Amino acid sequence: MKVVFIGAGNVATNLAKALFLKSFDIVQIYSRTTEAATALAKEVNAEPVTDLPLVSADADLYIFSLKDSVLEGVASQIPSNSGLWVHTAGSISLDVLSNYTSHYGVLYPFQTFSKNKTIDWTDIPIFIEASDSHSLSIIRDIAQQLSDKVDTLVSDERKLLHLAGVFACNFVNHMYSISKTFLDKINLPFEVLLPLINETAKKVHTMSPQEAQTGPALRYDENVIEKHLHLIEDDKIKEIYKLLSENIHRMSK
Amino acid sequence: MKVVFIGAGNVATNLAKALFLKSFDIVQIYSRTTEAATALAKEVNAEPVTDLPLVSADADLYIFSLKDSVLEGVASQIPSNSGLWVHTAGSISLDVLSNYTSHYGVLYPFQTFSKNKTIDWTDIPIFIEASDSHSLSIIRDIAQQLSDKVDTLVSDERKLLHLAGVFACNFVNHMYSISKTFLDKINLPFEVLLPLINETAKKVHTMSPQEAQTGPALRYDENVIEKHLHLIEDDKIKEIYKLLSENIHRMSK
Repeated sequence: MKVVFIGAGNVATNLAKALFLKSFDIVQIYSRTTEAATALAKEVNAEPVTDLPLVSADADLYIFSLKDSVLEGVASQIPSNSGLWVHTAGSISLDVLSNYTSHYGVLYPFQTFSKNKTIDWTDIPIFIEASDSHSLSIIRDIAQQLSDKVDTLVSDERKLLHLAGVFACNFVNHMYSISKTFLDKINLPFEVLLPLINETAKKVHTMSPQEAQTGPALRYDENVIEKHLHLIEDDKIKEIYKLLSENIHRMSK
Repeated sequence: MKVVFIGAGNVATNLAKALFLKSFDIVQIYSRTTEAATALAKEVNAEPVTDLPLVSADADLYIFSLKDSVLEGVASQIPSNSGLWVHTAGSISLDVLSNYTSHYGVLYPFQTFSKNKTIDWTDIPIFIEASDSHSLSIIRDIAQQLSDKVDTLVSDERKLLHLAGVFACNFVNHMYSISKTFLDKINLPFEVLLPLINETAKKVHTMSPQEAQTGPALRYDENVIEKHLHLIEDDKIKEIYKLLSENIHRMSK
C-alpha cells in the first residue's frame, strides 16, 4: 500500500514511523518547510515534497496530519487522485474532505505525540470514521495493525473526546509547567515532582478522579488557600489557582 | 521508639502503617472520631483515643497529621510531655509547635496519599526541619528508614514546594475530573484516557514540561479554541478552558 503523508508534525512523524515499521510503502512526505519534510522523509525512506502540485497522484492512501486551521486549504490544492484520504484531527469533521475527493475518512489516535519520543502504539485507542463502508474497512485494517483498541466514533463525539484530551493532557502538562516555576524559586530540580506526578496518574487507574481528589481546595481550607494566594506573585496564576480551587470544591458536592 | 499519632487521615494512615512495618511501636492513634481512630489503631496494633487529655505522656515521638486549620488548636491541648513533636504539613511553619513543647520538627512526605491505597515509600522525597540539631538527627534517622530521598528544607521553601504540589497533583487530578465529564456525555469509559494520562506523566521524565506542551492553546489555534468553548456547556469550565489556554500561550513565549 503506497502512502503519502501531508504534514510532518508530531502526529505525522509518529504515525509515519509506525506504518513504516509495519512495512507500508511511504512514498512522499509533504511539508511546507524543506527541513521538516526532509527530516521525516529520511526516516521512512520517502521523497520529501514542499510543493503541493508535486504530490504524487498514484498513491493508495493520503494521510493529512496538519494544523486544523490549514487542513482544508491544503486539501483543496492536492492534485486530484483516486486514493483514500484520511485526516487525523480530533476536532475536525469527517466532511472537511468531502469537497475534494470521493473516499475519505478519519483515523484519530487518542494520544500525545512528540517528534523525538517513540511510543508504543499497541494500547493507543484509535477512533475511526469514513465516508463509506469500504473506506471504513480499509482504515480499520490499518488501525488494527497498529493498535488493539480500534473503534468507530462519529465526528460530533470525537470532538468531545478531543476536548477531554485537552484537559487530561494539554492542561495537565500546563499544571506541571506552573508547578516548575515554584520549584525554580527554591532551586529544587523538577525530578522532585516525579513521584507525585506518577502517583497522581496511577491513582486514577484504580479509583475515579472524584475519589482520588485531595488537597486544600477539596476541604476548602481557606487558611491554606489564602496563604497560597499570598505566595503566588503572578496575577494570572493567582486567578488560575482561585478558579480551580473553587471548582474542585463545587464539583466535590 | 514509642510513637503516638495525632490524626488518622490520609497522611497519618500511610505514615503509621509504614512505620509499623519498620517495627516502630505505635502506642496510640488519636482522632476526633472513634471510627477513624479505631480503623487505623487496628492496623498498627495501637490504642485508639478520642479525648486529647487521654493522650499518653510517655511516648518518644508525637506525629501530628491534621487538617492545617486545627493543628495548633489540637497541639495546645496535648498533655505536656518530653517527647519530640513532629508535624507533616507542607504549608505550616516549624514554629507552630514552639509554644507547646521544646523539641519539635517537620517531616513532610511530598506525595499524595489515600487511606486505602498502599504506596512504596522508597522514592518519596521527604523534607525535614527541626528546632535543634539533635531533634533533626532523630527525624532524619526516621525518614531515612522510609525513603532514600531525605533532605532538609526551611519552612518558607517548604510552603512553595507544597504549592507546587497543589498544581502537579490536586489540580492535575481535577483536570482528570473535568475530562471525565466530557467522556460521560459520549458514554466512553474513563479507561480510554489512561494511555494519554500515562504518556503525559511519562513525557516529563525525559523533557521539560515546556518542551512537552502540545495542543491548540500552544499554537493558539483560535479555530479549535472557539469550537471547544462552544462545546463546553458549563460556564465555570468554559472560564477554566479560556484562562488555561491563554496562559499556555503566554508561557510559551
